[in-house]
Amino acid sequence: MATSTHKAIRPVDVLKVEGAAAVRTNDVSAAEEPLEIRLDGQPFVVTMRTPGADDDLAAGFLLAENIVRHPGEIAEMRQCQLNDNIFYVTLAGDATQRAADAMAGRRHVTATSACGVCGRRSIEDLMRHAVEVQSTFSVTERTVAGLPAALRSAQRTFDQTGGLHAAGLFDGDGTLLRIAEDVGRHNAVDKVIGAELRDGTLPLSERLLFVSGRTSFEIVQKAVMAGVAVVGAVSAPSSLAIDLARAANVTLLGFVRGASFNVYAHPERIRIS
Amino acid sequence: MATSTHKAIRPVDVLKVEGAAAVRTNDVSAAEEPLEIRLDGQPFVVTMRTPGADDDLAAGFLLAENIVRHPGEIAEMRQCQLNDNIFYVTLAGDATQRAADAMAGRRHVTATSACGVCGRRSIEDLMRHAVEVQSTFSVTERTVAGLPAALRSAQRTFDQTGGLHAAGLFDGDGTLLRIAEDVGRHNAVDKVIGAELRDGTLPLSERLLFVSGRTSFEIVQKAVMAGVAVVGAVSAPSSLAIDLARAANVTLLGFVRGASFNVYAHPERIRIS
Repeated sequence: MATSTHKAIRPVDVLKVEGAAAVRTNDVSAAEEPLEIRLDGQPFVVTMRTPGADDDLAAGFLLAENIVRHPGEIAEMRQCQLNDNIFYVTLAGDATQRAADAMAGRRHVTATSACGVCGRRSIEDLMRHAVEVQSTFSVTERTVAGLPAALRSAQRTFDQTGGLHAAGLFDGDGTLLRIAEDVGRHNAVDKVIGAELRDGTLPLSERLLFVSGRTSFEIVQKAVMAGVAVVGAVSAPSSLAIDLARAANVTLLGFVRGASFNVYAHPERIRIS
Repeated sequence: MATSTHKAIRPVDVLKVEGAAAVRTNDVSAAEEPLEIRLDGQPFVVTMRTPGADDDLAAGFLLAENIVRHPGEIAEMRQCQLNDNIFYVTLAGDATQRAADAMAGRRHVTATSACGVCGRRSIEDLMRHAVEVQSTFSVTERTVAGLPAALRSAQRTFDQTGGLHAAGLFDGDGTLLRIAEDVGRHNAVDKVIGAELRDGTLPLSERLLFVSGRTSFEIVQKAVMAGVAVVGAVSAPSSLAIDLARAANVTLLGFVRGASFNVYAHPERIRIS
């Protein structure tokens, strides 16, 4: 009993920084791609997922949404032959009506976990919409090394609950300018960037955004919209986060744990002393 | 520079298990509640968030969605006086048209991070839709203690990337029956439960669902829909996850790290030897 690694990982070249040493090497990242589920031919949802077991994912999602209640209500499931990221489900029995009701009654609700994804059908399409960040901003490896401790020491709620993600906005000297905590990492990023938008300080081309946990596509997408040039995280980036950062001229750092960290995109903004 | 804890935490009573010892104590959990953002009076999105800085959250979200581009495009923002979880934004300038275009052009897209949330307006409403899990299932504290190692040892992709969440389905003896990995924890849960649905094994009343990371409302909601009686996680649950577990007769475990763990709801299913 173990998970399959087929399609779930993607090779990636990375710059590993360890103190003042930096070496180029090959690594792997967790694959992230959009999946569009169509019910009886109609687009129903776009979700960001790791490819593999899409049939199980679709079935489980439809159960949670109260569309499907037992296996007999799924007449057929198949991947689109032209695009692995489109998945067709043909419903049967009462599920057909439930799906119709759900689509008719649904209000204008968009996907937080899929920000920047809604209404787009493919990775190519996602990337085409990316703006390029314009910035000559750079930081030293010592500034990066200080980020995790600075973020953590400002996280009052995490200390108490262990349950919140955080996002922090730093200047080039590593000074924390703004922080937000939330059960959703994407919300914490929205709060930090939204406060800057309201203050009229966008684009944030001389700022560094640092988040707890992992970096997914949506985090980089939010940074791009705010003009942030450097994004870092305590943990790993997804493959699509890396793709977007490279396309949008964003420096992407991962596994930032003190003096050692990885650079996945645009290392030219990191000054090694 | 530190985050405010106002509204961000919620007191919770918890059963702390440490080996064969169990004590009732008071703790705090990270607050999670739905927020509905209305644009010019029209419902636009429901997101699960930690209350606080809702004005920043709304502004940042609208920037990321390419509705608002500068502060002058937000004419007014205010919390609903009757319900803290409804937030009104009045747009100005070109943002008004962008919002209208976004709502008109939007396909039927639902929110993965807000599964079970879409179309519902309040916590009371969310809870009213919860079914109660019927199960006499129970597990020993020793079975619980073995879950993290069992899940981790089956996570092939995580070992390589450090970037994937996992969900595992266990029987009462702690045997891992099924596992899935994904960049999204909710997707991993959908994959595990969807596979069982397709096999015709629902309700999963004699099964234990164990996930890496934290437990949010949506994870418990998915478990409830599949009839799972015990949900555990390596890290902390949100306040709404606890509320739902209590209301839906689900045993909820958090901070499961070997022999020590917390029970947040329905401890009667945990047999201490």
